[in-house]
Amino acid sequence: MSAEAAGENVIFIGKKSVMNYVLAVLLQFDVGNKVVVLRARGRAISKAVDVAQIVKRRLLGGKVEVTSCKIDTEDVGDPPRKVSTIEIVLEQVE
Amino acid sequence: MSAEAAGENVIFIGKKSVMNYVLAVLLQFDVGNKVVVLRARGRAISKAVDVAQIVKRRLLGGKVEVTSCKIDTEDVGDPPRKVSTIEIVLEQVE
Repeated sequence: MSAEAAGENVIFIGKKSVMNYVLAVLLQFDVGNKVVVLRARGRAISKAVDVAQIVKRRLLGGKVEVTSCKIDTEDVGDPPRKVSTIEIVLEQVE
Repeated sequence: MSAEAAGENVIFIGKKSVMNYVLAVLLQFDVGNKVVVLRARGRAISKAVDVAQIVKRRLLGGKVEVTSCKIDTEDVGDPPRKVSTIEIVLEQVE
């Protein structure tokens, strides 16, 4: 499932604390979504990985898997500057 | 191909500059390796993604692909602390 198709299940990882985003992911799963997509750019990439791992290992252990992890590059700002991005797909397993 | 099997083709991303690691990757490909694995922990994860993207887009465009991107958790230090890790596999395509 691509992030585009997932629509509102996409969580953009920014400057807030890791636990803030962990909570956002849990809420998404709690309202019945089976897929949550994490997206981050630049230095927030490490934080996105932390969020995914905390959700997977500590909170929903065994019930959530990382089904996709893609890296890419985006142009940001003017003049455009290349920034690395990551997209992590978390999926609930039965 | 797992990182274990790749042996010496594994490059650990740490505190050096991005271009330092880009050069290390290029040297690995230059001596005939078809696969180079990048590994990073914690905050260096963003840097590993940058290295992969720079190699792929700017320097060996079209000739190198990211064939795998895995995230995991490791115990580091004493008392052990959970640290996120990433493993990015770069592979030369014909």
